[in-house]
Amino acid sequence: ISINQIEETNRLCNRKFMLSVVVEHIFLLVLVTLISVLQNAFFATKVEREGKEHHANTSAFERVSCANRNCMDSYPTFLAVLWCAGLCLNQAPAAFAGLVYLVARQKYFVGYMGQTSQSTPGYVFGKRVLSFLFLMCIVGIFNLLLVRYFGNDFKDTVETITTAASALLLIP
Amino acid sequence: ISINQIEETNRLCNRKFMLSVVVEHIFLLVLVTLISVLQNAFFATKVEREGKEHHANTSAFERVSCANRNCMDSYPTFLAVLWCAGLCLNQAPAAFAGLVYLVARQKYFVGYMGQTSQSTPGYVFGKRVLSFLFLMCIVGIFNLLLVRYFGNDFKDTVETITTAASALLLIP
Amino acid sequence: ISINQIEETNRLCNRKFMLSVVVEHIFLLVLVTLISVLQNAFFATKVEREGKEHHANTSAFERVSCANRNCMDSYPTFLAVLWCAGLCLNQAPAAFAGLVYLVARQKYFVGYMGQTSQSTPGYVFGKRVLSFLFLMCIVGIFNLLLVRYFGNDFKDTVETITTAASALLLIP
Repeated sequence: ISINQIEETNRLCNRKFMLSVVVEHIFLLVLVTLISVLQNAFFATKVEREGKEHHANTSAFERVSCANRNCMDSYPTFLAVLWCAGLCLNQAPAAFAGLVYLVARQKYFVGYMGQTSQSTPGYVFGKRVLSFLFLMCIVGIFNLLLVRYFGNDFKDTVETITTAASALLLIP
Repeated sequence: ISINQIEETNRLCNRKFMLSVVVEHIFLLVLVTLISVLQNAFFATKVEREGKEHHANTSAFERVSCANRNCMDSYPTFLAVLWCAGLCLNQAPAAFAGLVYLVARQKYFVGYMGQTSQSTPGYVFGKRVLSFLFLMCIVGIFNLLLVRYFGNDFKDTVETITTAASALLLIP
Repeated sequence: ISINQIEETNRLCNRKFMLSVVVEHIFLLVLVTLISVLQNAFFATKVEREGKEHHANTSAFERVSCANRNCMDSYPTFLAVLWCAGLCLNQAPAAFAGLVYLVARQKYFVGYMGQTSQSTPGYVFGKRVLSFLFLMCIVGIFNLLLVRYFGNDFKDTVETITTAASALLLIP
C-alpha cells in the first residue's frame, strides 16, 4: 500500500463524514420545511375544493384564495429567514420558531376563511417570529465577525440565550 | 518551516477541499434549479408579450397570467422539497425527479394557454413528483436518526432503491 | 488518554471548524438575503397602509398591490440564482450583484407607485443582474467538471474575472 492510497482512503472517509456533519446540522430545519410543505398542500387542497364546489367567483372562494395567496407571498421570506438563522447560529431555536410561525399561519388561514373583508398581505401574522429569526441571523453574523477579528467565541453563550429566548415566543 | 505554518497550510488545503466536496454534492441540483429559472423567464416573457399585444384584460391574457401565477405559487415549495431531498439522501434521483416536474409544468402551462376555464392552484400537476421528493426527505432523515442511535447505515441501500424508483416516475 | 479519546476530540474539533468554514463562505449571501427580507417587509407595509387608508379597490391600492406582487413573483427566482452563484463560484461578486438587483427593485417599486398602467411581471427590472448571476452559476459548474475530468483549476482566474465583471453592472 503506497502513501497515495492511504491518503485517498482517508479523503474518501472524510468526505462521507463531512456530509453527515452537514446533514446533522440541518435536519431539524428540513423537518420544519417538510411540515410547511404539507401545510401548503393542505391550503391548496382547500382552495381547489372550494373552487370546484362553488364554481369560483363566490365570496367564499375569493376569501380562501386570498388567504392562500397571502400565505404564499410570505412563504419564500419565511424559508429564507428560517434557513439563514439555522445555518448562522443554531438549528434548534430556529426550528422551534419556525413551528410557532406555522401554527400562527394555520390559525390565520382558518380564521380568514370565516371572516369577510381583509386584503392585507400575509405579514399580519408571524411578525414577531420573523423578527426573532431575523435577529438570530444578525447575531450569528456579528458573532462570526467577532471570532474572525478578535478571536472571542461567544457562540455557545449566544446559543444558550437564543434557545431560552425562543420559549418567550409562546407567550401570546 | 515551523509546525504552525504546516498546520495553517494543511487547514487552508482542507478548506478548499471541503468546499469542492460540498459543490460536488449539489451541482446536479444547481443545474435543475438553473433550468427551472430559464423556464420561469420563458413563462414571464409569454405573459409580458400577451399583455402588450392584447392590451391586458382580454381572456387570453387572463389565462396566461393565471397559469403563470399557479406555477409561481408552487415554485418555492418545489425548490424546498428538491433541495431537502437532494441534501438528505442523494442528488441524482432528486435532480431526475425535478426534471420530470419541470416537464409536467411545461405541459401544464402550454395546455393552460389553449384551454378556457381553470382556476385551481398549481398543485394540479406534479403531485406525484412532489410526493416522491417528500418521501425521499423523510427516508433521509429517518436514516440519519438510525445511524445516530443504532449505528446501522442503510444509506447506500436506500440510495440504490430511490435511484431505481425514480425511473417509475416516467410511467404516465 | 486513549487513542479513541484523541480521535474523538479531533473529530469534534474538525466538526466545529467545518461549520465555521461553511458559514464564512456564505455570510455575505446571508447579509444580502436579510436586506431583501427587510425590503419585502417595507413593500408589505406600504401595501397594508395603502389598503387601510383608501379602503381598497382604489387605483392607488391596485398599483401598489400589483407592484408588490410582481416583486414577490420574481423573489424565489432571485434567491435561487443568488445562492447558486454564490455557492458554485464566489460569494463576493454574487452578493454585489444581489445588492444591485435590490436597488433596481426599490427603484421599480417606487417608480410604479407614481405611474398608472403597467401589469407585466417583475422581470422587467434586474434582467441584466439575473443573467449575470445565471452566467456565474454556469461558469462555476463548468469549472467543477473541468477540474474533475482534466485537473485544471481555473477557479482563481475565473473568480478574479467575475469580481471585475460585477463592477460593470453599475453602468446604467
